[in-house]
Amino acid sequence: MSDASQFLIPKGYCFAAAMAGLKQSGRTDFALIVADALASAAAAFTANRVTAAPLIVDKEHLRASGSRVRVVAINAGNANCAAGKAGLDAARNTCNAAARVFGCPSNEVFPSSTGVIGVPLPAEKLIAVLPEMAAALGAEFDHFQQVAQAILTTDTVEKTAFARLEIEGREVRIAACCKGAGMIFPQLVPHATMLVYILTDAAIEPAILDGFLRPAIEVSFNRISVDGDTSTNDTVLLLASGASGAVVNADNAEFAAALRHICTSLARQIVADGEGVTHVVELRIDGAATDADALRIARAIAHSPLVKTAWAGADPNWGRLVAAIGYSGAQIDPSRIDIRFGELEICRDGGRSPAFDEAAAHAYIAQPEFSIAIQLHQGAGACVFWTTDLTVEYIHINADYST
Amino acid sequence: MSDASQFLIPKGYCFAAAMAGLKQSGRTDFALIVADALASAAAAFTANRVTAAPLIVDKEHLRASGSRVRVVAINAGNANCAAGKAGLDAARNTCNAAARVFGCPSNEVFPSSTGVIGVPLPAEKLIAVLPEMAAALGAEFDHFQQVAQAILTTDTVEKTAFARLEIEGREVRIAACCKGAGMIFPQLVPHATMLVYILTDAAIEPAILDGFLRPAIEVSFNRISVDGDTSTNDTVLLLASGASGAVVNADNAEFAAALRHICTSLARQIVADGEGVTHVVELRIDGAATDADALRIARAIAHSPLVKTAWAGADPNWGRLVAAIGYSGAQIDPSRIDIRFGELEICRDGGRSPAFDEAAAHAYIAQPEFSIAIQLHQGAGACVFWTTDLTVEYIHINADYST
Repeated sequence: MSDASQFLIPKGYCFAAAMAGLKQSGRTDFALIVADALASAAAAFTANRVTAAPLIVDKEHLRASGSRVRVVAINAGNANCAAGKAGLDAARNTCNAAARVFGCPSNEVFPSSTGVIGVPLPAEKLIAVLPEMAAALGAEFDHFQQVAQAILTTDTVEKTAFARLEIEGREVRIAACCKGAGMIFPQLVPHATMLVYILTDAAIEPAILDGFLRPAIEVSFNRISVDGDTSTNDTVLLLASGASGAVVNADNAEFAAALRHICTSLARQIVADGEGVTHVVELRIDGAATDADALRIARAIAHSPLVKTAWAGADPNWGRLVAAIGYSGAQIDPSRIDIRFGELEICRDGGRSPAFDEAAAHAYIAQPEFSIAIQLHQGAGACVFWTTDLTVEYIHINADYST
Repeated sequence: MSDASQFLIPKGYCFAAAMAGLKQSGRTDFALIVADALASAAAAFTANRVTAAPLIVDKEHLRASGSRVRVVAINAGNANCAAGKAGLDAARNTCNAAARVFGCPSNEVFPSSTGVIGVPLPAEKLIAVLPEMAAALGAEFDHFQQVAQAILTTDTVEKTAFARLEIEGREVRIAACCKGAGMIFPQLVPHATMLVYILTDAAIEPAILDGFLRPAIEVSFNRISVDGDTSTNDTVLLLASGASGAVVNADNAEFAAALRHICTSLARQIVADGEGVTHVVELRIDGAATDADALRIARAIAHSPLVKTAWAGADPNWGRLVAAIGYSGAQIDPSRIDIRFGELEICRDGGRSPAFDEAAAHAYIAQPEFSIAIQLHQGAGACVFWTTDLTVEYIHINADYST
């Protein structure tokens, strides 16, 4: 444990991870977050009409518990989705076993799963390692990192974010971890195979917690896409233990800002670790008729294979951007479209800018991260969206298969 | 000229192609279809709100001419899109020059362009070769093939279709050619960088011709997708010269069927020649609440990078299909989804079928063409849709760039 770490982890939680045998790699694949006492919870789930068994159980449990959580049980390597009654039974059996081990009602257990769809989850493997995990629980930074590691699938790095702020003279901490690299186009309801766990030691009632979570999600996880595939398992869970003693009211702008910072940081980390990604692209859409139109344009661009492959080759083919803007469904005037790559003017009034410098444009988008700004001159609608290129490596990751 | 060819080409048209110098490859890139006399015309254009200059001119000309066409002038190698007033001037100057050469009003010339977006079209190159093309015009099969060749861009093969039928004791012929391999998700209005030219020697008034074209497009070009990118240039043009002497009325089911056959054949050829394609997939959606819902599901599947990469690897990962069905927006019951690969039952009641045989499923979708049938048990909505896998080669074709 580093010295810094004792300042990062919110009070009131402990953590453990284990190898349950779900990942073929043999890495840790089961993680627990256990609140010392019952924590307030706010959660958001995928808008996909096919939802994994744990999400169905989560919704039942939050309703029954009044949005309170003791134990979060997360497995990677199996999504427990499209597995019928066997899938629901596997999720419930896992919760029941965790409830026995930690001495709480089953409905205070929040299960999550990520991995392959359509294969029944072997709950017995999870249940078998619960006792050793209970014995290994710890509240240190390293324990938190073990959780951040165990929940990964095709991710290449752990994704975490931390914040500290002072409220009523007391220090409040927020720590979060997430996973996600493919099937990333979260549309969470109030909107996420993205799994996100955000922990704070502030004291916040569930309804107020929910009021903080929704707007933060809207400008972070709902503004990213790797491949346009909305997962069946996406979940964002925000827990408040209250262990800091600081009570946070609904109008606390500092907490809202800290939470937004955490969510935006994690969202960008997910995009940066997207499957096969070599370029991270920030899209800044301005001058749309409405915010919804700005988002339509960002999504059309972010999901265009021709745009994404051009980025992979650092090809400043702005014509593909214009085509995507045109079919986005947004209100546009083709002769009023301006496009900039960073500070470089590429397209003006819908045509090639007189200042267009192909070599400079190519050099700019050859960078691993770059920004594209699009001005539509239709109104005040705007959005910022983060997405990726589409590479040969993405195809290898998702197409390689052997019987 | 083969013996067969004299039976295939409709009467009343002649053809020529030339090297105007637009394609870097040095291949033929400019084609003319010239009707001996004014032909009836019906046309459909892309739904993209950014439309190329030739489409703007086409619409003006059809309106001014009462939907009659003498000369079709098609260039490949430059889309003449997003080029502002210079683009419109280039299209109009080409029409004016063709009108002088062939002695007709400019508004009887129908220009088309396909190729890179955002680069002004050098009309002078097209205009310079018009006299030699006028001298080379011919009505034989080989001349028609020259047109089919010249309009190609990233296509690897010529795409043509032919039909003959007898109406009122007279032989009526239909011949068609098209191009398209990338940026293929035509949404033609009444609905196409797909360019399609269908010629018949039947005598059909423009309004009736339009009545034949729309339903044929709806079940063919509007039911295919390679990459989900709707082009700025898509065009379908149907001409009727009347040279056979056979008058076709609006209720002629045989002509409608022949036209539908032609359109479906071309649509499938486009998909089969899609950029980097190694698998052509027929999606048969049945039991949707509505036809629109069936189409939503087909499109979601056809545009899912995860589904398309799984096909590339012949990976029978049906969970990705279920996820796409779930986020399609269609009304579904996740527990009532059945999926077959050909005759193989893969998923039943939303979960893995007891009959699921992974090796057999893999072997089936390892074939270059295969069929996936999805039954939703929601209603009578249905559609058939053709799409492709997403391969490393697609990325290479669209990402390779050098300054």
